[in-house]
Amino acid sequence: MAETAKKSPLTLQDIKDAQVRIKPYVNRTPLVRVEDLDEMVGCQVYFKAEMLQKTGAFKARGAFNKVLTLTDEERKKGIIFSSSGNHAAACAYVAKKFGMKAYAVMPRDTPKGKIENCERRGGICILWDRDYQARVKKVADEIKEHGYTLVHGFDDYTVMAGQGTIGLEIMEDLPDVKTVIAPIGGGGLMSGIATAIKESDPTIRVIGVQVAASCGYYLSRLNGRPTRMTSQPSLADGIGCSYPTENPYPIIDKYVDEIVIVTEDHIAEAVKYIGEYAHLVAEPTSAVVLAALLEGKIKTAPDEKVACVLTSGNYDIDLVGKFYKDEHVDPVDD
Amino acid sequence: MAETAKKSPLTLQDIKDAQVRIKPYVNRTPLVRVEDLDEMVGCQVYFKAEMLQKTGAFKARGAFNKVLTLTDEERKKGIIFSSSGNHAAACAYVAKKFGMKAYAVMPRDTPKGKIENCERRGGICILWDRDYQARVKKVADEIKEHGYTLVHGFDDYTVMAGQGTIGLEIMEDLPDVKTVIAPIGGGGLMSGIATAIKESDPTIRVIGVQVAASCGYYLSRLNGRPTRMTSQPSLADGIGCSYPTENPYPIIDKYVDEIVIVTEDHIAEAVKYIGEYAHLVAEPTSAVVLAALLEGKIKTAPDEKVACVLTSGNYDIDLVGKFYKDEHVDPVDD
Repeated sequence: MAETAKKSPLTLQDIKDAQVRIKPYVNRTPLVRVEDLDEMVGCQVYFKAEMLQKTGAFKARGAFNKVLTLTDEERKKGIIFSSSGNHAAACAYVAKKFGMKAYAVMPRDTPKGKIENCERRGGICILWDRDYQARVKKVADEIKEHGYTLVHGFDDYTVMAGQGTIGLEIMEDLPDVKTVIAPIGGGGLMSGIATAIKESDPTIRVIGVQVAASCGYYLSRLNGRPTRMTSQPSLADGIGCSYPTENPYPIIDKYVDEIVIVTEDHIAEAVKYIGEYAHLVAEPTSAVVLAALLEGKIKTAPDEKVACVLTSGNYDIDLVGKFYKDEHVDPVDD
Repeated sequence: MAETAKKSPLTLQDIKDAQVRIKPYVNRTPLVRVEDLDEMVGCQVYFKAEMLQKTGAFKARGAFNKVLTLTDEERKKGIIFSSSGNHAAACAYVAKKFGMKAYAVMPRDTPKGKIENCERRGGICILWDRDYQARVKKVADEIKEHGYTLVHGFDDYTVMAGQGTIGLEIMEDLPDVKTVIAPIGGGGLMSGIATAIKESDPTIRVIGVQVAASCGYYLSRLNGRPTRMTSQPSLADGIGCSYPTENPYPIIDKYVDEIVIVTEDHIAEAVKYIGEYAHLVAEPTSAVVLAALLEGKIKTAPDEKVACVLTSGNYDIDLVGKFYKDEHVDPVDD
């Protein structure tokens, strides 16, 4: 934890406010104790089951917090975002609840299933170039022309505050939690959770997990400054990260005790174990937290209470328990 | 509901007492709202996720309630039961918590995985004839010789009271629930749930689901008296029932509004949908409740709040989402 980091613009109070704000709309997901995994990984395992959240992913928390803080004028104009995955589905769902328009900018070659998943929830898909910068420009152009509000998946403090409510719930349900493990992709989820935890109780250990294939935050920490890498394909494409994002970076630098990386074989194994022992369907992006324990990347004691955040469950059910390689990784798109 | 049925020996108060008794030991499982299934089945879907219960099945509730009401003398001698499935795993788990011996009488040809699952939890397996009556006799002989306490999987009021706590939790979490759907196998789970619901609020509809392949309670209701059938193989072997059991029968006769049956194709489909839309791993025995809705066997209104009890999740994860036929059905063994 870098002592020199300046005060974060995201505070515990923001997250507490978010909790009150979104409570009527989101599920209180369970923190499931899974004793059958203890011996295998060497600690007392708890899973925060965000696959049981609205739209099957934690993303609904941030999206609700953002939309609930918009003015009537902003709501009338609608929201826009660059995502084809869980963030898109969550934003479309939230917008529909409030009778708003939701515009999803996604690559032209987005799999049909993802497009349909967004449209089924009422989202309007704008198919554009795969190139990330081109899509960023498209979003900016749309905002300029129509006055939509951008709901960024992770580089937005209001979104981060929504995701941080997971941290508050973990501490409420397990006051003697010693370690909290969550994935780091764009970094919005971890920024929220780490702020909630560390500003409540700095003695709780917060650990972030990235995939070796695309681990911008991990490399940046090693180098002491933001560092870029060329991402490789990963099962956990949704948390790919070539380069840390501007706003989450200092928060993660300040509050995350360790960042570890996991490899593909352990991710596949973890997906299977979560199904077998916890009876939950986890996306590979979720399963990385268990993979880190399986791979021995996190030092734990047998009596240590460890809360693992399972972020989402939108995975092809036929693939659970099978080794499976995705074709590409899109590090900024979920 | 037969008005002539006499007062049940199982009461709402027994279930309320069980709830207080087992609370420190069991998980408070979530009642998960799954909006994405509403349109497909024509009501507001809620899943009571008992796969997130200790040992992955509701059976832990009844087993805890039984063991917690034993004397010290009885605990010293240990418990015995005829089961190779979820009831065996739950009993072994509960016995281990109290440092007790747990003896599971199971057929010699029980799959190795089931034997290991019981032994892993500290259970002692007594392998005996597949013939049910031979195993009943073996259990009686063991009790006579060693003084063990029988923990019957369903024909025991204390066990039923434990399972009934599911009904109380559903009403606590969803006070305006209109319909509760649960599987009927031996009938212990349904006896508990139906008593909890109907003695609290008789206007809540209680519906039982059996598999067409082995539906003793369904046939008995049609005939107005206990009726035997020759069971056929089913995906949902754990709830096979050739003939209704003595103690649950009058309770189910009195309190269950409708009993419906489902067919194999819809069970497989339901397992898949529960994984896909609810992100939960359901055994086929669990999935029958959704199968009944998919098959149109239960009349519902779009705004009707329907709680479906998903009883367990101990299923080979590789088979989720695949059509799969089990080799045999063992109607009295779970």
